[in-house]
Amino acid sequence: MGVTGLRRVRLTVAYHGAGFHGFAANPGVTTVMGDLTAAIAKIVRRPVDELTLTGAGRTDAGVHAWGQVVSGDLPADTDLADLARRVNKLCAPGIAVRSAEWAESGDFDARFSATSRTYRYHVWNDPAPNPLRAGTVWHVARPLDVAAIRSGAAALIGEHDFAAFCRRPDGDVSLVRILYELDLRTDDAPTLVFHVRGSAFCHQQVRSMVGTLVDVGLGRIAADAVSSILASGDRQRAGQVAPPGGLVLWQVGYDGTRWDASL
Amino acid sequence: MGVTGLRRVRLTVAYHGAGFHGFAANPGVTTVMGDLTAAIAKIVRRPVDELTLTGAGRTDAGVHAWGQVVSGDLPADTDLADLARRVNKLCAPGIAVRSAEWAESGDFDARFSATSRTYRYHVWNDPAPNPLRAGTVWHVARPLDVAAIRSGAAALIGEHDFAAFCRRPDGDVSLVRILYELDLRTDDAPTLVFHVRGSAFCHQQVRSMVGTLVDVGLGRIAADAVSSILASGDRQRAGQVAPPGGLVLWQVGYDGTRWDASL
Repeated sequence: MGVTGLRRVRLTVAYHGAGFHGFAANPGVTTVMGDLTAAIAKIVRRPVDELTLTGAGRTDAGVHAWGQVVSGDLPADTDLADLARRVNKLCAPGIAVRSAEWAESGDFDARFSATSRTYRYHVWNDPAPNPLRAGTVWHVARPLDVAAIRSGAAALIGEHDFAAFCRRPDGDVSLVRILYELDLRTDDAPTLVFHVRGSAFCHQQVRSMVGTLVDVGLGRIAADAVSSILASGDRQRAGQVAPPGGLVLWQVGYDGTRWDASL
Repeated sequence: MGVTGLRRVRLTVAYHGAGFHGFAANPGVTTVMGDLTAAIAKIVRRPVDELTLTGAGRTDAGVHAWGQVVSGDLPADTDLADLARRVNKLCAPGIAVRSAEWAESGDFDARFSATSRTYRYHVWNDPAPNPLRAGTVWHVARPLDVAAIRSGAAALIGEHDFAAFCRRPDGDVSLVRILYELDLRTDDAPTLVFHVRGSAFCHQQVRSMVGTLVDVGLGRIAADAVSSILASGDRQRAGQVAPPGGLVLWQVGYDGTRWDASL
């Protein structure tokens, strides 16, 4: 075996969150990054601790991904198509590498190069639950007022301190983020899809915004109260936190001005 | 508690097949009808053995339903909306009663009054599997020739003896059935949906037809061989049997001329 250099790889990864205790590697428990790293290390025949992979966004336990992006360094002679096929066998059915390609630059970092994240949140809005979608939708039995939700959502667009919708982190960290889009799509009714795109998101921000907007749709919170909840920075005033199973990390963007997550 | 008469009920039932050892009640194992009957008996406060429910079609282990129809007799003073809500709590997340109504006639029988059954079979036709659909699609990695599949499917439409596509039953039973529709829908690609409507289906018929047509789409069986496979009545000549997880009993029809299943 000759000595071969390392090269930066970019993987697009889908996973079903139900089988994992969250995304980030965590010794002793099953996580997405733990399983993915172990599979790749086995295929490229390197020790697991020599392989450092970075994900674009940490997802909580039970949250799914369709377009999570993962970067790291692999031996430059790795056949990436073969790697993807073999990971997909080793990690089935919970994790799949949807694409594997060499990054244009060795500076590419799935997390710090990202300029936007898109999430989708799926609500099944029907009196009866849907057993075929259990675990990937939030069942809301009472009819939602779509116009009220859209009106409330509009108040969240833009650059704001999202403290009212975030789990307060340790330390003095900014919770300022830019929300580009928060659309409620109804063309697949009774599945209602929140399409949410932002620079980055604080912990539980998407689920907290969606839960609050569902409370708006149920008449528990007035649509025009959303802007004052946001301005208050007070998490007690926000609504419920939507359950993790309805949420999917849909896409990560790397085009456009980089958002400084340390802001 | 006064004495109340019984009245024929018609339930539309969805379920996720993965959690059950098939549809029909079977003492000692978890089945859809076993769980459903136990829940309803509890709600209407009758002994389980006094409650006889009939399903429109038996589905194999792992096969799902969206529009299974179930009939039976319940106390005439049962509040059906309340019954559905309570069944859906007791049987979550695997089974849901989508609608519950009194039948127009006491002669209504979910199985024998049915004039057609519609199934949908879902193929995920992409190099990488889809973890978010695991258990509800069949992952076929190589690209399928859609035109060839449609050409092969056309040969199956009509009234035929489907012995080549059925598990041979015990005894001398007719395997003549009428296939009304077998469409391959591609508008949700890479999910390909076989939409299959017939008078009734023999055991494993839909999965055997779909598996054979996927073999056609992969170039393993010629499209113009399908009619001779059908005519042969020889199951050895048919292709693979598609796995159960992609199949959904979609709808049961009660309009039109009754199909005599004993033919």
